[in-house]
Amino acid sequence: MRMVDLIEKKRNDHSLSESEIRYIIEHYVKKEIPDYQMSAFLMAVYFRGMSKEEIFFLTKAMAESGEQMDLSSIPGIKVDKHSTGGVGDKTTLILGPMTAALGLPVAKMSGRGLGHTGGTIDKLESIPGFSTRLSPEVFLDHVKKIQIALAGQSATLALADKMIYALRDVTATVDSMPLIASSIMSKKIASGADAIVLDVKVGSGAFMQTMESARELAEEMVELGHQAGRTTIAVLSDMNQPLGMTVGNLLEVIEAVETLQGRGPRDLRELCLELGAWMLYAGGLVMEPEDGKEKLREVLDNGAAYKKFLEFVAMQGGDTSLIEQEGGLKELLCPEMCQTFYAEESGYIRKMDAFEIGKASLALGAGRETKESPIDPLAGIRLLKKVGDPVEKGEALAILYARDEAHCLEGISRIRQAYAYSPAPVETEPLIKKIITIPS
Amino acid sequence: MRMVDLIEKKRNDHSLSESEIRYIIEHYVKKEIPDYQMSAFLMAVYFRGMSKEEIFFLTKAMAESGEQMDLSSIPGIKVDKHSTGGVGDKTTLILGPMTAALGLPVAKMSGRGLGHTGGTIDKLESIPGFSTRLSPEVFLDHVKKIQIALAGQSATLALADKMIYALRDVTATVDSMPLIASSIMSKKIASGADAIVLDVKVGSGAFMQTMESARELAEEMVELGHQAGRTTIAVLSDMNQPLGMTVGNLLEVIEAVETLQGRGPRDLRELCLELGAWMLYAGGLVMEPEDGKEKLREVLDNGAAYKKFLEFVAMQGGDTSLIEQEGGLKELLCPEMCQTFYAEESGYIRKMDAFEIGKASLALGAGRETKESPIDPLAGIRLLKKVGDPVEKGEALAILYARDEAHCLEGISRIRQAYAYSPAPVETEPLIKKIITIPS
Repeated sequence: MRMVDLIEKKRNDHSLSESEIRYIIEHYVKKEIPDYQMSAFLMAVYFRGMSKEEIFFLTKAMAESGEQMDLSSIPGIKVDKHSTGGVGDKTTLILGPMTAALGLPVAKMSGRGLGHTGGTIDKLESIPGFSTRLSPEVFLDHVKKIQIALAGQSATLALADKMIYALRDVTATVDSMPLIASSIMSKKIASGADAIVLDVKVGSGAFMQTMESARELAEEMVELGHQAGRTTIAVLSDMNQPLGMTVGNLLEVIEAVETLQGRGPRDLRELCLELGAWMLYAGGLVMEPEDGKEKLREVLDNGAAYKKFLEFVAMQGGDTSLIEQEGGLKELLCPEMCQTFYAEESGYIRKMDAFEIGKASLALGAGRETKESPIDPLAGIRLLKKVGDPVEKGEALAILYARDEAHCLEGISRIRQAYAYSPAPVETEPLIKKIITIPS
Repeated sequence: MRMVDLIEKKRNDHSLSESEIRYIIEHYVKKEIPDYQMSAFLMAVYFRGMSKEEIFFLTKAMAESGEQMDLSSIPGIKVDKHSTGGVGDKTTLILGPMTAALGLPVAKMSGRGLGHTGGTIDKLESIPGFSTRLSPEVFLDHVKKIQIALAGQSATLALADKMIYALRDVTATVDSMPLIASSIMSKKIASGADAIVLDVKVGSGAFMQTMESARELAEEMVELGHQAGRTTIAVLSDMNQPLGMTVGNLLEVIEAVETLQGRGPRDLRELCLELGAWMLYAGGLVMEPEDGKEKLREVLDNGAAYKKFLEFVAMQGGDTSLIEQEGGLKELLCPEMCQTFYAEESGYIRKMDAFEIGKASLALGAGRETKESPIDPLAGIRLLKKVGDPVEKGEALAILYARDEAHCLEGISRIRQAYAYSPAPVETEPLIKKIITIPS
């Protein structure tokens, strides 16, 4: 087998066999196939696509290309949840403790943020002392003891995906459905969960900007999960505006804590109940998702979810006294580092472009431009209004936090581009757009 | 400017500007753009194509990326001739001396063969002593003294093209009209000739297998030449069967000598008269190509072309006594290393697939699979019949030469696939298919 012939085969729109795809992945990981052949292959995939079978072979080969987590020593059905990435998406911080409080074993591996989207690890690390560097033994032990642990992804989990993703990023081949679906699902499969709940974001702040492409991706991933023997459910949710009222790291943790205490913004709570219900359903703890929602409302409102969160943070070295103190984590924010952004028109907010707000958060220092950039845990945006809200010109729309005035001003100039107004009332998008539970 | 953005621009079917294309070529030559970005870009070009403007910018940037020959010290209009590559194509060996004998300055840079097609340098080097390693000074000096010199291409002539071609070869991006046209023309422009006559081969043994694609390539190259200020003429000629009656290195030199002596096969003579006439016309030595043909017939028939060939060979160190001896260069061939291939049916020869015959010649040892493979100068094929000829089953069709029996048998099994027969007489393709003298 020669890589050049396989590139040509794909270029000429023929399907590759399982052994051909395995050859590519195995030899690429061993560096026997050079980057320049892989990138030409990826560009051919960009143009020609892949059959459902090819995508599955690719996913499987990537999942098996590095370390694979073995969660079998944890009793019960292990359910993983994955978001395709959005702005203000702090659901994992809430879903983990909430479902763990109901007995679901949560053994979660997460990533860091890149570009305009945040990452769960970065958010949790804004709690002083919190560590996500757990050995596999400690990780499993935590789940057995308190039902929840969250670790950074092992450096070699789905190694081929890691190598290919780095290459796609610099060769304009990120934007390909088969490559996105196989990248996500190879990591999920290698992470070892029995069931997977996918939060597929749709809109300006998401990878998938149209319902059509999001549905296609979701269907593909649900099918891939089932082919790999994992119950897989996809929830399509709106990402035209940020989720909740905060974007940043510490700011999002504060909002997650409020939500775990039964408060928190309506949209965030709604999405957590939806995703959590499907997790409980996939984990066999309820017969119907509606029953799951009921149970989840209980643990939010009776303090059990919040208690589990504190237990989880303490177990991973975080300073819970800062959370429990009068004023909570908000005390860590210094008001002198903030600026307010005011409405430029009167009427109704028609648009709060999630991508632009994500970029503004990045400009404030909350995200990283490249993998090596440091992040500022205190930087971010507190939103005071959402799409559809009536506003007066000059009314405060958002408060921006950053380490200095220069960053604040950069954030302000960027966030301005996110907003559009309407003189007439605006119809808002439903948050939950579609549920896909079985392969089409 | 970032390469990833330029890849994405091309991927999304937008045209690149001159400065963007120049950026790509200049930074690639300096190795500031890695191969993996270039190969993704080339694959995007394969799928999206390039506008006429983009192809010209690419050609120009590549022509200027390495050494450029300056032929201005040679008086007169310098005409270059280039073949897109075929099987049994020894026209350069004949055209050079023929036109030089009529006063056209022939300053020719040639390449080696690769794959199923041969190269002029390999053919000439089968004459003991002949060398194509000439310094630029010696090269120019020869042309001034005897009107003809032939050298191997400088290692840095159109350097970007050399680097890109090597990459295309292993990334399935060879087969792209804009890349083929710019590759050929960048070398021709960098070679410094004032006018260019292109022999664009069409058929099974050629790069371009259909008239449509060959005409498109020819038109593109004629336009590129004119844009670069060079008179450029394309002759489209048949390459469904090999040219002449020999394929190999020494075998082709022998046939070229016969043709220069006024003998030689009809098709080879016809093509040389056609190409030579256009060279004389482009060089301003005749007013009409028909006048050129007349003059060329004279120098073939009166010995002047053959005399010029001997002068040329001697000037570059070749042993002319081997050519002039009784029996000529044929004396170098040992009959014990040959096998005959016989007709397997009676009737008429319907097909002699040039690609398959080229592959058979390669199997015999006459060509190289990779750039590093050694070649056997004595290996090759002498054809006894051509398409349209009547044959009896068991009649000899070709004699195959190789260094040992194993190679001979490999060649026989390969050449068998080239032939097809017909019970009824066969209409043959015209050799000269089209002339393109001005941009469309």
